[in-house]
Amino acid sequence: MLLLLGHRAAGGTDDDAVMGPALALEMLHTCALVHDDVIDRADTRRARPTVHREYAALHAGRGMRGDADAFGEAVAILVGDVAFVQADDLFLQAQVDDRRLLEGLRAFTALREEVMAGQYLDLVTSTTGQGDRAAVLQVATLKSGRYSVTRPLEVGAVLAGGDATLVEGLRRFGDPLGRAFQVRDDLLGLFGRPEETGKSVQSDLAEGKHTLVIVEALERLEGMDRDRLSAMLGDHDLGADDAAVARELIERSGARRAAEAYVVASVEESLAALDTLSVDDGVAKALRDMATRLTDRDT
Amino acid sequence: MLLLLGHRAAGGTDDDAVMGPALALEMLHTCALVHDDVIDRADTRRARPTVHREYAALHAGRGMRGDADAFGEAVAILVGDVAFVQADDLFLQAQVDDRRLLEGLRAFTALREEVMAGQYLDLVTSTTGQGDRAAVLQVATLKSGRYSVTRPLEVGAVLAGGDATLVEGLRRFGDPLGRAFQVRDDLLGLFGRPEETGKSVQSDLAEGKHTLVIVEALERLEGMDRDRLSAMLGDHDLGADDAAVARELIERSGARRAAEAYVVASVEESLAALDTLSVDDGVAKALRDMATRLTDRDT
Repeated sequence: MLLLLGHRAAGGTDDDAVMGPALALEMLHTCALVHDDVIDRADTRRARPTVHREYAALHAGRGMRGDADAFGEAVAILVGDVAFVQADDLFLQAQVDDRRLLEGLRAFTALREEVMAGQYLDLVTSTTGQGDRAAVLQVATLKSGRYSVTRPLEVGAVLAGGDATLVEGLRRFGDPLGRAFQVRDDLLGLFGRPEETGKSVQSDLAEGKHTLVIVEALERLEGMDRDRLSAMLGDHDLGADDAAVARELIERSGARRAAEAYVVASVEESLAALDTLSVDDGVAKALRDMATRLTDRDT
Repeated sequence: MLLLLGHRAAGGTDDDAVMGPALALEMLHTCALVHDDVIDRADTRRARPTVHREYAALHAGRGMRGDADAFGEAVAILVGDVAFVQADDLFLQAQVDDRRLLEGLRAFTALREEVMAGQYLDLVTSTTGQGDRAAVLQVATLKSGRYSVTRPLEVGAVLAGGDATLVEGLRRFGDPLGRAFQVRDDLLGLFGRPEETGKSVQSDLAEGKHTLVIVEALERLEGMDRDRLSAMLGDHDLGADDAAVARELIERSGARRAAEAYVVASVEESLAALDTLSVDDGVAKALRDMATRLTDRDT
């Protein structure tokens, strides 16, 4: 949707002409999810078995040779790789002139490099437990700002021949919005209703994710309180009662309020940038609605 | 090198203009190797630790959180993904006109889709133990013919504006040559000198690889002989003495001779196609030398 909006922001009138690139983003995301599930050894995704689990079960069920888990993982790595190259295939189906298509591909390539850099940084900060506020916001910029918001808008815009001024304006709109989206997601992960968010309130803690709200809490807490929260990060045996303790510590430290304030300030920054963009009224309204939808939500 | 030769075959004179795409093929291959090593759980590559082992060791050495092997695998999957996208980045650096660059990208995308299809087919035939001669040759066409020979030539050719007749001719040259290369590789894996090939004579057997020479042997052997060879495929505890038995069975069945004859016939088919190509004499000689180099070798 953001790619289509970026396309319209630059004066594009035919959504179908850039449907290939829009689907390419979805296909790339499929690759990321399948590979992430291998990395996180996840059992389910969207309430269904993950690809590697599905193929491990198939292997076991049919009594094939070798190790079932290894087979499942091998298939999942390949499926992700196939999705990755099919994204290029879809992208190349855009019906725009050659010069614009190549410019779009360059922005799409930058998007992919950024999300992987963000993914690696995220992995390292979670594993070393040493991510500070700056590192957390850098991950949020790369994995959410650029990947989820700014670059899709930019790809759409350059495919319609949008100039550097428009692209720069879309970036000032997209980067803070993407970060706000990520922080909202982190808050929902801890304080949301699991039946609505689809994930348990302890899962981010158990994975040791260094989110803004966690980093803010660690900076504000002292002594035993800080040690308690710190010990929970990355503890895979964490239960719902531990999560309740963590939530109480985070709330009391003021970190939840700080993170909520960060979302509000970032959305304001984003909307202020939107006001300076010279785009069609319908597009401006759609972008404004998108900003609300991404950051003011329960699931 | 094949991409540069394809480029020259179509009249290209400036190798530097297509160095980006040539390096893209190397970078793609880096992705394939890193992901394959995860899939095969390999410890070493080119006499050095594989990426996943290197990062698992780093994790263990620094006493990071969580499981060292899982961290190593996560990094290796990401490193492969980064190499994959850097291949696109390099490709886009070609200095050719936009139309040709996009045509080259489309051929590069087909190359990637084919090699993954071949990889999956290879995985399934090894795992089910049900690859027949046709499946083996299909894998050899996709993973060696197209990936290693034909598509690199084609990408180079279209980047220089080569037409469909040239591309078709290069395919008739490349597909059989790539298959011959693969069968030579399989023969060296079994009958070569480990100190020269860099791999043990039992490794293909232990992995249960369905190669042409193995399939030919299974088709020719009967009774207990067939059962003995069949039981060795995919047996990870295989030793050098078992490999000696396997080699003797394969030799006696006539499968080795049949595979050698296949290499000779395929190279002849390839060189006959080369004679029909209208390319510069220097390029024709280089392609002929390449055919010899790929199929008449000890390592």
